Parts: sequence; structure tokens; C-alpha cells
Amino acid sequence: MSILIRNGYVIYGENFDVVKADVLIEGNRISEVRRSIKESADTVIDATGRVISPGFVNLHTHSPMGFFRGLADDLPLMEWLQKYIWPKEARLTREDVKVGAYLGTLEMIKSGTTTFMDMYFHMDAVAEAVLDAGLRGYLSYGMIDLGDPDKTEKEIDEALREMKVIEKLNSPRLYFVFGPHAPYTCSLALLREVRRLASEKGKLITIHVSETMAELGKIQERYGKSPVVLLDEIGFLGSDVIIAHGVWLDSRDIQILARNGVTVAHNPGSNMKLASGVMPLQKLLNAGINVGLGTDGAASNNNLDMLEEMKLAALLHKVHNLDPTVADAKTVFKMATLNGAKAVRLNAGVIKEGYLADIAIINFNQPHLRPVNNVISHLVYSANGNDVETTIVDGKILMLDREVLTLDEEKVIGGAERVIERLS
Amino acid sequence: MSILIRNGYVIYGENFDVVKADVLIEGNRISEVRRSIKESADTVIDATGRVISPGFVNLHTHSPMGFFRGLADDLPLMEWLQKYIWPKEARLTREDVKVGAYLGTLEMIKSGTTTFMDMYFHMDAVAEAVLDAGLRGYLSYGMIDLGDPDKTEKEIDEALREMKVIEKLNSPRLYFVFGPHAPYTCSLALLREVRRLASEKGKLITIHVSETMAELGKIQERYGKSPVVLLDEIGFLGSDVIIAHGVWLDSRDIQILARNGVTVAHNPGSNMKLASGVMPLQKLLNAGINVGLGTDGAASNNNLDMLEEMKLAALLHKVHNLDPTVADAKTVFKMATLNGAKAVRLNAGVIKEGYLADIAIINFNQPHLRPVNNVISHLVYSANGNDVETTIVDGKILMLDREVLTLDEEKVIGGAERVIERLS
Repeated sequence: MSILIRNGYVIYGENFDVVKADVLIEGNRISEVRRSIKESADTVIDATGRVISPGFVNLHTHSPMGFFRGLADDLPLMEWLQKYIWPKEARLTREDVKVGAYLGTLEMIKSGTTTFMDMYFHMDAVAEAVLDAGLRGYLSYGMIDLGDPDKTEKEIDEALREMKVIEKLNSPRLYFVFGPHAPYTCSLALLREVRRLASEKGKLITIHVSETMAELGKIQERYGKSPVVLLDEIGFLGSDVIIAHGVWLDSRDIQILARNGVTVAHNPGSNMKLASGVMPLQKLLNAGINVGLGTDGAASNNNLDMLEEMKLAALLHKVHNLDPTVADAKTVFKMATLNGAKAVRLNAGVIKEGYLADIAIINFNQPHLRPVNNVISHLVYSANGNDVETTIVDGKILMLDREVLTLDEEKVIGGAERVIERLS
Repeated sequence: MSILIRNGYVIYGENFDVVKADVLIEGNRISEVRRSIKESADTVIDATGRVISPGFVNLHTHSPMGFFRGLADDLPLMEWLQKYIWPKEARLTREDVKVGAYLGTLEMIKSGTTTFMDMYFHMDAVAEAVLDAGLRGYLSYGMIDLGDPDKTEKEIDEALREMKVIEKLNSPRLYFVFGPHAPYTCSLALLREVRRLASEKGKLITIHVSETMAELGKIQERYGKSPVVLLDEIGFLGSDVIIAHGVWLDSRDIQILARNGVTVAHNPGSNMKLASGVMPLQKLLNAGINVGLGTDGAASNNNLDMLEEMKLAALLHKVHNLDPTVADAKTVFKMATLNGAKAVRLNAGVIKEGYLADIAIINFNQPHLRPVNNVISHLVYSANGNDVETTIVDGKILMLDREVLTLDEEKVIGGAERVIERLS
């Protein structure tokens, strides 16, 4: 299988230089980028007036949570969770979660996301949806033991069971990740065992850390230190760890994350909507920490649109610092692509010969994206997810001209509606 | 001319209650809203799975500035203006401004804006574009005299000249507005004369006030008081005045604005991108001030998407106050519709019998807008401008199923590209 994408504005290489060129994909790799490629290909896409961008890497989400989009908003976090989200989540079956994952993956395909890091439950069901959708999924079962030793063992067992099922599916697009939920919901025993298992099995770890001030208070009360210091002291941190949020980090925390090569998944939309706070982005970047971008779940965002998320990131840090030069367009674009790929050790996030063919083609023939004064600026500040026209993952076209080829859109949406009707 | 919109989710009345109903438009008014209207109509629109919303009122923009979208970002305000924007603006001809206004109006139609308040120059040319586009435009010539008495007279003369041309076009969709640029760029003589003329001629006034800390410093240095106190003392303020931005307002300023019935046009996207600061929204609302929403120009946003602007407004104030309950979805939706209409004294911003037929139909048959748990929440938190399918102003369809009927999209975009090529 080969695909030739003709005559687009290509965002090329690690520096994201914009060049008018053709892109040739052979198998699951980008094989050539240059002006006027003469070779023929199985599929030819005319990208005149389009931008050929690396696909987006959503580094933190809960893909099946689309059910709960708009179900309750404008509420304090704990009221929102306890009154609305948790009671409904408790009633979700394995099949429901799969239906939710179809909705989430459909939404991601339609907005140019090609890879995502997920945390939920019944992840073996999510894996089946990801397989059908054609995306690249890093899937973690969210472990919560609340300090109960029986629960610790059960949670570890469930994670390992889901890992085995996912590995049995034997897809190069599915990756199991260990997902202890957070230091305030997991015992040290669980965290230590996760660390041991991840090293033994060569898996990544993702975990919520320092999302809210309330969390900081709890950990301080229980352990007398910050969540990051705690994780460091038990030897949990490493370059295979991706922490989500990292809103409330002090200078010592930041030094520790930098020293351990930890990646931080920034979720500005969720942090703003839940009023969690503002991540110290500039300090993290200055310390040399790899920062990626995530949407969090659709219940706290309320969509999975990485283009919108880039704008939120850029705008939030400018106004918070009263400095328009911070979080410039290229920095934020890199967070949403290359930094995310780097975090999961994927040879993607860049349009260049030899990289995986994970690509989003964005239609710039629209009034809000013209004149084409600056492609990267337009993607960050002017575009939105609906502007993505074609999504390619692993050399396979998942959406062409807004038509999703791998999923039945109506069926997926109808399925999600039925689940929420039953739960209400 | 009559239009029947069938079977949509109607956002009905001043309380924005969502009901499944049909909407009948006769002439330029909404004549009936109820389930299963049996009357026939000249045009019937099937709105199954769609939301029938009041069109958006963009209460502060500079519609021809789309030229400069992405031309320069991530810069301090004065460097941005002096190095990039002003030198190019100085070279714009009357015809160029008209071309820019076509691009701006096209973008607004495509994202469901039906009414906008504009400030720029060659507004008589902008008026011609608005007339063709079919939007409702409140058009102000931005007056700047920098304290030079010769300039004062010239600016007043130019405003009155443009007023006469616009009035001669004799359209119920065109309104002339007085637009002194700001207290720091206009002499007190100019401001006093504008106040006198506006009262005499029954026109609205719009003006930038308290946008940046630098502006506050200038006015403090020159007059020893805040911009709002200054304007109050010269008798400038009233219920016919719409101030744009209002970022740096203290309690006394807010009392003054409330007492005078002044409307504030909030521009969160621009205030964030230029790092101007955060408007004290809660204090303004608590004081009973009418607050509308605007995008500002496309050079500092970088689009004219009122759906995105609603999300920015809601999210900004939640995180700034560390309180997720402020700027709830309905409050922000009202700012973008009814409050804007109220500011310009227009019988619109609401879907209800007798109101002007200014309507946006939004396609909810998309994964990021399902399940339909909450229509207003989805519009504020999940939707974007591209989700708008049909735009109706004054009982006339400007866009149907994403096809703009009043403007030639390709021609408009091509024209804008040629202007910026010539200027670069």
C-alpha cells in the first residue's frame, strides 16, 4: 500500500519548517518528501490548499467518557464526581465502555488525533474499539486501591489480565501502559509493585499527579511531603513515566521531574474548566522537561479536539504570566505532536522520511484560515478540529475528505445515545 | 418570504429553555414557535438533530483585519502594532478595506454570527460589504486625534461623512455608531463633541477602555484618574455607550459603569493572546452591568468564532477565580446573544414570536456533540464555528448547509490573499 499526498504545505522535520511539497507513504512509513514526486501510488490525495501536519498525540484522556459530555458542568470537582460521574460510571458494563471508546476514537479521528494515551477500565474492550478505529492507543487500566491490601492485589491482577488480553490482540498500534490512578488513591504498596512490574515488562506508566490543591493537602497530611517528592523517594519516577496535569508543582518538584526525565501531560482545558489551576509551563520547559498535551476526558473539557487544546494552552499561559511571548505557537504545536510521540517512545510526531505515517491533512481553503500568513500560527490560533479533512495512521487512511472509513458514524453515535438513555 | 424550520432543538425565549419544536419565520420576524406547525412556507429546512439558536452578536471586532491573521504573534502589544500592523494598515486603500470586510463577514456568516459591532476606517466601504453579505452591522469609524486640534476636526468630519454615506445606503441592517478609539488616543475635545453628536443624532458610541495596564498608566499620568472616572466626569457615559475590553476596572469604575448603564464588550481571546489581563467578569455581573461578548479583530484572536469565544470566556474566569461555578454555560451563552442585542437595542438574540429572525442552526449530528445531554453546554464547551450549518439574518438565508449564498467564497478569499501579497 502506498499513498501520495500532492502539493500541500508540509510541516517538515523536527523544526516544523513549512514547505510546499509532496509526501509519499509506503507501507506504514513516510518514504519521501519533496517537490513533484513522480512515482505513482495506490492512492493519490490532492492537498492543494491543505496543510500536511503530523497527527496529534493526545497524551492524556479517558476516551469512553464522551457519554458524560455536558451531563453536569460548572460544579466543584468533588460534587461533580460524587453526584454525577461516579454513580453512572459504577453502572457501566464492559460493552458500554466499548461503545464509549468507539465514540471517543471517532471524535479523535475526526479532529486529527492519531495517537492517544488512555486511562479507564475494561481497557481490553477499549483495545477492540481502537483496533477497529485504526488509531494508535496507549491503554492503561486506572488502578485505585484506596489503601486496602485486598484491593491492591485485585487491581494489580486486573491490570495484568487486561495487559495479556491487549498483548494477545497482537497489534503494532496497541500498547499496554500501567495506570495507577494517583498518589492519593493508590497505596505505596501498589505504586511500588507497579514500578517493579513496569520495569520488568518494559511498559510505560501514566499517573495523575498534583492536579488540585486538595490533592496536595491530602498527600501532605498523609506523608508530610509533596506527591512528586513522595514518588521520587519510593523510586517510582523515570523516563518511562508520564504524569498527567502537574498543576501544583514547586521548584523542588520540578527539579525532581527533570532529573528523572519524567514527561508531563498538560491539560489546559480540563484544568481551566474544573478550576484546578495553572500548570507552571515556563518553569517546566526551562528545566528541560518534556511537556506533551492532552484533552483529558470529554466530561471535563468537553471535547477531544487537540487543535482547540493548543489554543487554550497558548492563551492560558500568556494571560497568566501577563506576557504574550510565552507559549508561542511553535512551542505549543511541538507539545501536541513531537513531545507526545517522544513521551511514548514512538517514531512519529514529525513529517520526515523514515517516520511513521501518522498524518493529519487540514483544509486551509476556508475564510478563517486565510490568508496563509503563517501555517503553524493558523493551526494553533485559528483552526479547530473540524478543519481536519483526512487522517492517516500507520499508513492507513482512517478518514478521507471528512468521511470516516473505519467506523460507522451513525451507529457509533446511536450506540452512545442508547447507553446514556439507559443510565438516566 | 417565509421559512419553516422543522423538528430542531429550539433554544426558546429569554431563559433559553430547550424544546423540540418548529420555527416559522414570516418576513424578517419569527412568527411562531411550536410543535408540528402545519402551515406551509416558501422554504422548509429540516433541522432534525440540529439546534436552532439565536444568532451570535459579536459586540467588538475590526472586521477587515483578517488580512493580518497570523502575520505576527507572540509579541508584546506595542511591538506587534508598531512593527507589523500599523505600517501595513497605513498602506490599505478603501478597496482593500472592503476586501477585508468581505473576508470578515464571510467568516462570521460561516460561524453563525448575525450581528456585529465594528470599528475601523473606510467604514462606508465596509458597509457595502455588509450589505452584500447580508449581516447586521453596527459600524464605527475609529477616530484618533492624539490631542491635535486640527486632527480633531478632521476626524469628526470623516465620521460624519461616513455616517451620511452609510445612512444613504438606507438599509435596516446598517447602523452608524460613533467610535472614538480610546481615551489615550483621543482628546477630551473630541470625546465631548462625540458625546454631543451621538445624543443629537441618536447614535450609539463604542470605545476601547481600560484594555491594558499601560493605558491606565498613561491616563493616570495625563489626568490623575482612571479612564472610567475621566469619561464619567466629562459626561461621556450613558446607556448608549459600549466600552470594549474593560480589563483593568476597580470597584469605583464598576460602580460608575453600573450607574450609567454602560455595556461592556468582553474579549477574552484577545485579552489572553495579547496578555492584556483578565476582566473582572463576576464583579461586573454582580453590579448588574450588561456584559456582551466579542472576538476583537482576527489579528489578535486569530478568528471571529463566537462559539470558541464562549468557551474561552467560561474557562478563563473559572481558572482565574479557582472556582468552577463562575461563568456557567448559560451566563456565557446569554452574553454572546441576548446581552449583545440588548446593548445595541436590537429586538434579537432570542428565539421567540415577534423577535427578528436572526438565527444560527447548528448540526449536532457529530460525535463531539453527542450524546445531547445539554444543548447550551455543548454550544459553549464542545462546539466550534464550523458546526454552524445555516445562518439566517433578518429572515433571509445567508448560508444553507454550509454553502454561503450571498458571497462567492473563493473570490472573497482570493481577494484577501492578493492584498496581503501586495503589502508584503
